Amino acid sequence: MNDLSRLAIHTATTKPWDLETAVRKYADAGVSGISVWKEALEGRDPAAAGAAIRAAGLAPVSLVRGGFFPAPDPETRAVRIRDNERLLRAAAELGAPLLVLVCGAHPEVRIAEARDQVRSGIEAVLPLAEKEGVRLAIEPLHPMYAGDRSVINTMREALDLCEGIGSPSLAVAVDVYHVWWDPELEAQIGRAGRLGALAAFHVCDWKTPLEDMLEDRGLMGEGCIDIPRIRSWVERAGFRGFAEVEIFSRRFWAMDQDEYLGRILAAFREYV
Amino acid sequence: MNDLSRLAIHTATTKPWDLETAVRKYADAGVSGISVWKEALEGRDPAAAGAAIRAAGLAPVSLVRGGFFPAPDPETRAVRIRDNERLLRAAAELGAPLLVLVCGAHPEVRIAEARDQVRSGIEAVLPLAEKEGVRLAIEPLHPMYAGDRSVINTMREALDLCEGIGSPSLAVAVDVYHVWWDPELEAQIGRAGRLGALAAFHVCDWKTPLEDMLEDRGLMGEGCIDIPRIRSWVERAGFRGFAEVEIFSRRFWAMDQDEYLGRILAAFREYV
Repeated sequence: MNDLSRLAIHTATTKPWDLETAVRKYADAGVSGISVWKEALEGRDPAAAGAAIRAAGLAPVSLVRGGFFPAPDPETRAVRIRDNERLLRAAAELGAPLLVLVCGAHPEVRIAEARDQVRSGIEAVLPLAEKEGVRLAIEPLHPMYAGDRSVINTMREALDLCEGIGSPSLAVAVDVYHVWWDPELEAQIGRAGRLGALAAFHVCDWKTPLEDMLEDRGLMGEGCIDIPRIRSWVERAGFRGFAEVEIFSRRFWAMDQDEYLGRILAAFREYV
Repeated sequence: MNDLSRLAIHTATTKPWDLETAVRKYADAGVSGISVWKEALEGRDPAAAGAAIRAAGLAPVSLVRGGFFPAPDPETRAVRIRDNERLLRAAAELGAPLLVLVCGAHPEVRIAEARDQVRSGIEAVLPLAEKEGVRLAIEPLHPMYAGDRSVINTMREALDLCEGIGSPSLAVAVDVYHVWWDPELEAQIGRAGRLGALAAFHVCDWKTPLEDMLEDRGLMGEGCIDIPRIRSWVERAGFRGFAEVEIFSRRFWAMDQDEYLGRILAAFREYV
């Protein structure tokens, strides 16, 4: 895809850069949008960070990430809801229209119960999301994270939640890394479009073999995901937002980040 | 589950033992069934191995594993079909009623195409399966293997294949490790029962964190899978076969295997 007006990058992709450096480098390279990892905001005023992002000519795409609702005890679950409320306020101050949710999982909470806790957690924070004008985007996570990161593992499940809860402030984020294997992906992306619930599109690639389940994502073109095909489904479903590069990779974090940014742009043009 | 007449073990679980040792040790411990890893048959006559298994009082449950159909070139795909035909004959000689299929995946074959190749491969070997009286059991593999081991990743997909092909010699194997996360699991197990396609039930556990995607499975009770709940679904669907312990684990292979076998029996009684 040659249109850089559609390219956003998630700050965790270039983790060695602090927020100010990432903003400057992305803007200089012609990137158009930025998603902000909540750790990148630490010690900063979200409103000032948002102003700096916009002054550099970048659009704040999302704040990443809320969620993590399930826990064995009600006290922890209440703490998590307050955490999400803080993040919603931070997203509003930042000027990000979206708070991405990694819904959470806990090895000591059975999966069916954890799924109920996710729904309750989302319902608890939705009124504030509506008030602040920030959408919550459920990001279905790859099933390999069902034990410790998220019990929402398919687009069907995420959309069942959206439909069941029925708030325009609740949507989904499609990350090719998590959903590329799903035989229902095309159908569920179409369903997301019909529901008006397609809020974000994240790209990277799936390497084989995977050296690490968390921090060995591939740059687009390095792996086996047919990204242009999935993008065509997302666009056919009416999505006109950014294709957002989100790569957690120790290998790339160890590289010279300027050189890496150049490779990201080249991969975006060739493989997205 | 206290009934050892329902306990089978897959030889790969106790990989340091050769087939003869595994047969003797399992039988002495009161285990009732054995699934045979194809590597465990190397250099052996399958018919003689089957006779030795039955003489020890064990039931041969399955030969593991055929499949691996997708490949970029037709020559390799033809070789894979011949491999599966050899395995079907070996299963028949062994007296195993089932050949378990890890359907295959290839990083250079796009997932949709690979799924077509799996279907073609199964269709190519089914006539021999029917002739030999050996069922093929599609084992849906966890989506984390979709890039390099199997593009059949959910029960729904496996059953769609069974229904589409419509042969009584084609069924599914449910392994809790691969499917525990699936929100549709209960419904799809019920469907498998209605189709008469529930051929095997494998147990182990899912640890968090997982140290290795291939060889860090947990012993039942060590992880987050609600095995008794899944077993209740499988039994409600009419399955009366073995609960078969299949654990690939470097940690357990490094242990004294007699002590490990004792732990397997204890875990079977307590957590299956």
